[in-house]
Amino acid sequence: MTSTERYVVGLDYGTLSGRAVVVRVDDGTEMGASTYAYPHAVIDDTLPATGRSLPPDWALQDPADYRDVLRHAVPGAIAEAGVDPGRVVGIGIDFTACTVLPATADGTPLAELPRWRDRPHAYVKLWKHHAAQPHADRINAVAHERREPWIGRYGGKISAEWAYAKALQVLEEDPEVYAAADRWIEAADWIVWQLCGVETRNACTAGYKAIYQDGRYPGADYLAALNPDFAGFVAKLDGPITPLGGRAGALTTRAAGWTGLPPGIAVAVANVDAHVTAAAADALGAGHLVAIMGTSTCHILNGDRLAEVPGMCGVVDGGVSDGSWGYEAGQSGVGDIFGWFVEHAAPAGYADHATLAAEAAKQPVGGHGLIALDWWSGNRSLLVNHELSGAIVGLSLATRPPDIYRALLESTAYGTRMIIEAFETAELPVHDLTVAGGLATNRLLMQIYADVTGRPLNLVASDQGPALGSAIHAAVAAGCYPDVAAAAGAMARVHRDVYRPDPAAAKAYDPLYAEYRTLHDHFGRGGNDVMLRLRALRNAARAGAR
Amino acid sequence: MTSTERYVVGLDYGTLSGRAVVVRVDDGTEMGASTYAYPHAVIDDTLPATGRSLPPDWALQDPADYRDVLRHAVPGAIAEAGVDPGRVVGIGIDFTACTVLPATADGTPLAELPRWRDRPHAYVKLWKHHAAQPHADRINAVAHERREPWIGRYGGKISAEWAYAKALQVLEEDPEVYAAADRWIEAADWIVWQLCGVETRNACTAGYKAIYQDGRYPGADYLAALNPDFAGFVAKLDGPITPLGGRAGALTTRAAGWTGLPPGIAVAVANVDAHVTAAAADALGAGHLVAIMGTSTCHILNGDRLAEVPGMCGVVDGGVSDGSWGYEAGQSGVGDIFGWFVEHAAPAGYADHATLAAEAAKQPVGGHGLIALDWWSGNRSLLVNHELSGAIVGLSLATRPPDIYRALLESTAYGTRMIIEAFETAELPVHDLTVAGGLATNRLLMQIYADVTGRPLNLVASDQGPALGSAIHAAVAAGCYPDVAAAAGAMARVHRDVYRPDPAAAKAYDPLYAEYRTLHDHFGRGGNDVMLRLRALRNAARAGAR
Repeated sequence: MTSTERYVVGLDYGTLSGRAVVVRVDDGTEMGASTYAYPHAVIDDTLPATGRSLPPDWALQDPADYRDVLRHAVPGAIAEAGVDPGRVVGIGIDFTACTVLPATADGTPLAELPRWRDRPHAYVKLWKHHAAQPHADRINAVAHERREPWIGRYGGKISAEWAYAKALQVLEEDPEVYAAADRWIEAADWIVWQLCGVETRNACTAGYKAIYQDGRYPGADYLAALNPDFAGFVAKLDGPITPLGGRAGALTTRAAGWTGLPPGIAVAVANVDAHVTAAAADALGAGHLVAIMGTSTCHILNGDRLAEVPGMCGVVDGGVSDGSWGYEAGQSGVGDIFGWFVEHAAPAGYADHATLAAEAAKQPVGGHGLIALDWWSGNRSLLVNHELSGAIVGLSLATRPPDIYRALLESTAYGTRMIIEAFETAELPVHDLTVAGGLATNRLLMQIYADVTGRPLNLVASDQGPALGSAIHAAVAAGCYPDVAAAAGAMARVHRDVYRPDPAAAKAYDPLYAEYRTLHDHFGRGGNDVMLRLRALRNAARAGAR
Repeated sequence: MTSTERYVVGLDYGTLSGRAVVVRVDDGTEMGASTYAYPHAVIDDTLPATGRSLPPDWALQDPADYRDVLRHAVPGAIAEAGVDPGRVVGIGIDFTACTVLPATADGTPLAELPRWRDRPHAYVKLWKHHAAQPHADRINAVAHERREPWIGRYGGKISAEWAYAKALQVLEEDPEVYAAADRWIEAADWIVWQLCGVETRNACTAGYKAIYQDGRYPGADYLAALNPDFAGFVAKLDGPITPLGGRAGALTTRAAGWTGLPPGIAVAVANVDAHVTAAAADALGAGHLVAIMGTSTCHILNGDRLAEVPGMCGVVDGGVSDGSWGYEAGQSGVGDIFGWFVEHAAPAGYADHATLAAEAAKQPVGGHGLIALDWWSGNRSLLVNHELSGAIVGLSLATRPPDIYRALLESTAYGTRMIIEAFETAELPVHDLTVAGGLATNRLLMQIYADVTGRPLNLVASDQGPALGSAIHAAVAAGCYPDVAAAAGAMARVHRDVYRPDPAAAKAYDPLYAEYRTLHDHFGRGGNDVMLRLRALRNAARAGAR
């Protein structure tokens, strides 16, 4: 360490904990890290303040936990790094989204005020709070009725997880809380407000989660059509949209006290965990698809033009990096499906990923005779239907566990290829894939993705992709680099062309992918809606049995 | 036991052993039984006489083993029964089919002559000898080209397991053996010949396996079109067709010596294991479907008229009982599929039928949200295609092993309902089902069959259904009853209406069955031939990898 070295802190707020990473500005070297688990974790059973049960599908958090991450994880990471905190020049954060809370005009969460503390709707609604589906259904129905111009940019469907459905639920279930909320703010922007004392609205969540398109939110007449009392909702969001890579403000003395960092250093505009990974992957240019692969997969792609791509989660101007159109797509179940197989469908002797992968890797392409549809958790892109379900075709008495395991891996690769081809059909080329997340270590899976997509695979070389991405944004906010692209070029950690398509395997996958696509369209696009009917029959049968 | 009691012996020749049962003529009580395992079992690896390997898919037997059953199992059963052999008045047999052998004009198997003993084609070809598929393919192609009138009575397809394909293979691979075979005879008829010294040809195997229809075998011009040297093949079969329930002859002194039974007693005309079970079930009248349910299911139905039912294995005049049209259908995989699931797809803690069935039985109909196609072993009826494969639709992260297990049980019940509806569409009503075989003890499965088919289920009350059926035929041959129906009325062992359809469950199954039928027709009748293509790709991939 020389006396001129500078550092930045990246903070990644996940579902159960926050993680801080200290990164060297010059080259992105990760010096130290520390994780702090939220004391209240996910509040989905009873509200601690009252001990009363929450309804099904609720998922809340306590905003105090986020502040505690500043107090514990940041000093912990500095200590592990062994660097002088005086050399830290900036801090950046990313968060789960849409994770959103009601606050007063000065940023105080309603949940922290005694008047509201026993009201469930006063708390943070975590991304996976799924109790606003009826509200989302109305949001979509009314948008299509009125032909709202923005609906096509979200694949025709606004999620129940996003800002409007959650806010509408508050209005209709606890109008007093709704009225008391001067601000309805992403936790990402709220924690930045805590750090620098300035309220900002980052372009990413504003676009993907709060329907900010072409310089405006949805109009008051549309909102009034949902509920007359919802007409003024946008006032709780409004304010200037701040671009990614920007400087939100300077670290306050109070936040400096929490973190042990110097007051006055740069605080970067907030980001979202998946989207910020594109910076960590140095994949901000057009044509580089980033896949964050874990229990599910999130796909991020920058394009130099606007296109409406069917089945996308959203396209947002500056949503991934300022100056580009950021596209997001997703596969609802990926690692979850493999985990399901190991836990619930693999016999003794085969119930671990290593054994299954080792056996499956010995097979020639097509040797198992199976095709699966990877819809165990429904289909986000391209079909945007969570009532679809999984299928396996080709089973025989000779089928063995590694056969099915391999077919499941392949099915998710086919799903990714469908997404790539949807981008390319919309004239957004995809040249390569960069993979981040836990599944990147599964060598068989990675080779299958290279072979099925016919594209080389880069791997993000950090276990902390999002935190590294946040650190990169901190370096830009601190003025160390002119823009995120330049910072990513110097600081990103990526191994290129780790997996290349094997030409023979890629050729052998083409007819299998064609079969997948045929089944995909048959079961997913109206050829036979048996999956939807089976789901309805299942739900009715279970309700009747209760 | 009174001094006037009379007994008959039923002999059931299976794949690996022969079983004798001593039965009281008056009421069908089983007095004793004994099994004798064939010393050579199935010869599918090397020919013992030479030590040389057999090609793939061969399955031979040694006819001497069948004679040994007479020497061991019959005296064993008499001893276990503790009856006076002098009170035995008749013996009847049933056999696997088509299990067929070449013999000289006096009934000596070629395999027992030193000149031919080292020639594989001289041996018995067991039913599951599957090496004559190319010959069967030609048999079918030529039959359809020439519009042979009999082909429709076999669902449009003659099996590679049957008499012509196996004989054509002998002709083309070992013409000397073919030329030396004066007779080409079912093992069923051959063992009767051994017992009474008279060659007979039973109406059942002649019709189902040797294409005897409307009083004749296929013509010489058809056979010549297969191979000019095959034109005279029928001479090796020909002779009078003997009706089921008839008397083939009297037990010879030599056979009396083997069995310990009195010489001169009646020997019944031979039968086939599945077909003879209809007598044991007292289900010879029109409208009573017998299902012999084990690893696969065989369905037997008598009708009072001739109809060509798509997908039937065959319809034969007097093929099940004299004076009726006997229909045979089949499901290629049933218990095999459940066994596959337990062995290869059930995790620890669920890998036994009892646990899975107990959990599955708790579910409401439709509660698992799944539909399976039961084609793990292909589809015999109605689709007659062994390259079809299994499928499961509706899988989710919430799917558990008992869900899939129950869906597999149900899928085979849907397959049975398809067969019942095919009969009824052809105006052959099916009033009830009588179940024999190992699966009859699975209570959940039986209730599902009652509910899915909407029909009451009777159960054959004997573990030895076929042997009891053979004993019934022996009693008729001995003149104790005027015909098989009368004997079955007195001697059959059947519990009636053991399972009745639950009206609510039956109603709940209707929409699920409709989904099954839609998937069945889509994947089985040309909507999407993906299964056939996957099988071809699988076979090519495996061949390439070798």
